[in-house]
Amino acid sequence: MELTFLDVAEEHAAQNPHGTALVCGDNRIVWADLVGRVEHLAGALMVKGVVVGDRLVWAGQNCHRLIELLLAAERLGAIVCPLNWRQSADEVRFVLKDADPRLVVWQRAEIGETVLAVRGATAPETVWIAHDDEYESLLLSTPPPELSRTLYDRSRPLLMLYTAAFDGRPAGSLLPGRSLQLQALYGMLFAGAGRDDVYLNAGPLFHVGTFKATLATFVAGGTNVFVRRVEAEEVCRIIDTERCTGAFLQPPTLAAMADGNRDGRYDLSSLRPKGRYRSGFGQTELGGVVTFVDTESPPAGSAGRPGPLIRVEIVDENGRALRSGDAGEIVVRGPAVHTGYHRRPELTAQRQRDGWHHTADLGRREADGSITFLGPMGRMIKSAAENIYPLEVEACLRTHPAVADVAVVGVPDPTWGQTVRAVIVPVDGARPTLAELQDHCRARIASYKKPTSLVLTDALPRKGNAIDYEATGLRT
Amino acid sequence: MELTFLDVAEEHAAQNPHGTALVCGDNRIVWADLVGRVEHLAGALMVKGVVVGDRLVWAGQNCHRLIELLLAAERLGAIVCPLNWRQSADEVRFVLKDADPRLVVWQRAEIGETVLAVRGATAPETVWIAHDDEYESLLLSTPPPELSRTLYDRSRPLLMLYTAAFDGRPAGSLLPGRSLQLQALYGMLFAGAGRDDVYLNAGPLFHVGTFKATLATFVAGGTNVFVRRVEAEEVCRIIDTERCTGAFLQPPTLAAMADGNRDGRYDLSSLRPKGRYRSGFGQTELGGVVTFVDTESPPAGSAGRPGPLIRVEIVDENGRALRSGDAGEIVVRGPAVHTGYHRRPELTAQRQRDGWHHTADLGRREADGSITFLGPMGRMIKSAAENIYPLEVEACLRTHPAVADVAVVGVPDPTWGQTVRAVIVPVDGARPTLAELQDHCRARIASYKKPTSLVLTDALPRKGNAIDYEATGLRT
Repeated sequence: MELTFLDVAEEHAAQNPHGTALVCGDNRIVWADLVGRVEHLAGALMVKGVVVGDRLVWAGQNCHRLIELLLAAERLGAIVCPLNWRQSADEVRFVLKDADPRLVVWQRAEIGETVLAVRGATAPETVWIAHDDEYESLLLSTPPPELSRTLYDRSRPLLMLYTAAFDGRPAGSLLPGRSLQLQALYGMLFAGAGRDDVYLNAGPLFHVGTFKATLATFVAGGTNVFVRRVEAEEVCRIIDTERCTGAFLQPPTLAAMADGNRDGRYDLSSLRPKGRYRSGFGQTELGGVVTFVDTESPPAGSAGRPGPLIRVEIVDENGRALRSGDAGEIVVRGPAVHTGYHRRPELTAQRQRDGWHHTADLGRREADGSITFLGPMGRMIKSAAENIYPLEVEACLRTHPAVADVAVVGVPDPTWGQTVRAVIVPVDGARPTLAELQDHCRARIASYKKPTSLVLTDALPRKGNAIDYEATGLRT
Repeated sequence: MELTFLDVAEEHAAQNPHGTALVCGDNRIVWADLVGRVEHLAGALMVKGVVVGDRLVWAGQNCHRLIELLLAAERLGAIVCPLNWRQSADEVRFVLKDADPRLVVWQRAEIGETVLAVRGATAPETVWIAHDDEYESLLLSTPPPELSRTLYDRSRPLLMLYTAAFDGRPAGSLLPGRSLQLQALYGMLFAGAGRDDVYLNAGPLFHVGTFKATLATFVAGGTNVFVRRVEAEEVCRIIDTERCTGAFLQPPTLAAMADGNRDGRYDLSSLRPKGRYRSGFGQTELGGVVTFVDTESPPAGSAGRPGPLIRVEIVDENGRALRSGDAGEIVVRGPAVHTGYHRRPELTAQRQRDGWHHTADLGRREADGSITFLGPMGRMIKSAAENIYPLEVEACLRTHPAVADVAVVGVPDPTWGQTVRAVIVPVDGARPTLAELQDHCRARIASYKKPTSLVLTDALPRKGNAIDYEATGLRT
């Protein structure tokens, strides 16, 4: 007797029929109406031929109808895939072709032309429904289906989000109901989501960072408010009007909001301060974040500790658990883990070998048992039989008082294959020596990881925020 | 990728290997040792022939080994049944025969004679292991088995607790991993269980009220402390020594503790005050409590609101949902619900008809959507086509200022079959009239439920706390 998200909506409808579930522009959907709308939508989807395992692409911006589509899809065992409409036409074409949807719910306003331009990427029999002019009449036309709920399987994929894979092609991560349910419970446990919450869906819903808070608010019985895309003034206006208690907002938006609201025109006082826990390590393939930092009892590891019912290990390249202090790949088990990548059996098998989800992210367990996330595993230095992750050595060197910036690279070595070189930007007036930096490393990480040569420089070449290792002239 | 409780123990062992998981007398089991012990125990059980679905009876008092048995059983797909050793020999014999266990882990100390006296109730091939002298050597003798964990099914029964059924025979309620996991998450969400908790298992572990807090503490990474049975002084001593933060204690024990510790000999200051939520409605068949009262925002209904991922309805005898204000049977859906009663297919089908677990408890949804629990459905008055639950009418009359005590019974009526009679003990000096009480009822519950006759009396006959309806001379 597992429950679906529609069951959850029914519970809220039984308790609070006139409570507002979803707000989107002029649409205000109360719980009692939401249940009826989703039942009709499920009926309409059945009539269109949707069956278990079918992909339903959402080619629109943030909207309450995406949530209705998710609830109806779960009822039918289908999978919803929100498209990243900000991608290039080529990228969107790749994703549409790869997803191979039975049905596309698309948006005419603002992004309609972009979407229609790539329509040819889907099969000819794919059904296209414009949510901003055909959707509501569809709900009116179809009686709800009689479907048994007793056979619901929460391990079946429900949400597909595309993420960068490691062969250059995006891959659709298939998130089952169990993952989204656990994330919703985490939202209640670690972010305090409750029935009096009003959450502004300002981040894009093709990203797991927004979606997990949406579902937490939904399961807790709060109100989800949707804004098509992030615009500082519009965000301020909606927070004021709807008395939003939380929102997914990035620093640039927050700065623009502060700037635009200097005259205090909008009342943003409904937003609640952050609570006791902050997010630690997460991934699309985990449906969101799975480790949390308790700020009242701060752990040594920057990513904190796993939430309940999650296993995390740090393993070497043979899958053996490493002792605390050693950097290795972060691997995860538990209900949060996706079922795999859409139509990528080899990638799925490779990333789920030994019964663990391999994150391809580098981490370390600290002495207190908490986890530090170091970064993507990408680069590795091979020195004799040892694997050295430059990220780990950089993180260590960065804590030295004379170091302003640092890049660690591997340089060819006739004896060891490669050895570690530190390229350092010193803080003003400082002039760290190799011996000094080696001592610093030896006290903190395994001795074989310490740099064996040192280059001092004025600045490191960068691409955006990231160091451009190619341009350092020393490839790893 | 669902997790077992042993996986959870492994996560705690990875984070906090020397942290104390279980304390029982002189035994202190740290997380790292617990994992190894359970793996060995699972191996020993395999050698004894335990397979999926087998029942393993725990015929002992509270002990850390019961938790180890549960973890090992989950690994093998077996079911643990803690016996109520306080029952009469006949009751224990019935339960032992009904459970039909592959293996009994029994306790020689204190209750050994009682247990041995009923040994004949099990099949001759049943394996009996005395936990207080054979268990530890068993762990030493057996290497841990190689078992795949990827096929773990959290819908499989794991814990069997006997509960009163409605045909006079106790029935074994089969609780799956999903129910116990949800209860553990509820313990974190609503009781604030955390990794620094030290929970004293003072209530009996054959009762779901203790078990759910044990598992919450376990999943949160806290310490469980076991005491064989409740004795006020021993409880005080352990709270002092172990710095317990919580305990399952009933009012008589609390009174005895306060009495025995008047000189402040024991420091009980580690016990934490109750938090924001208090328990609402629960049942063995739900693995514990599924509704919670938010004391910071008190609901109208005494049982509060369902926790996340739980559906509750109030239904009439045809399974139709009732409007708020009408009393009916409380029915529940969700992961908390048991899989059914051991070897009672008809009872299981009857109690799970229409896809809902029928609690046989009477409740009402209030205007704010919250739930009131009125009591067991037992008695019903049939008046024409209407069903009237005396409990509901009694609860209403009890709120009248002139009423000190009340019993509502059905009396034969030539026109209606039965009509409602109120037997009232007035408060000192008051003399309520029938018309007055009828007005009171009409304003609060459906008019047809009001009493049509009134008897005033000095006291109601009781059996213990319950009214003895038989002795009122008026059967329902």
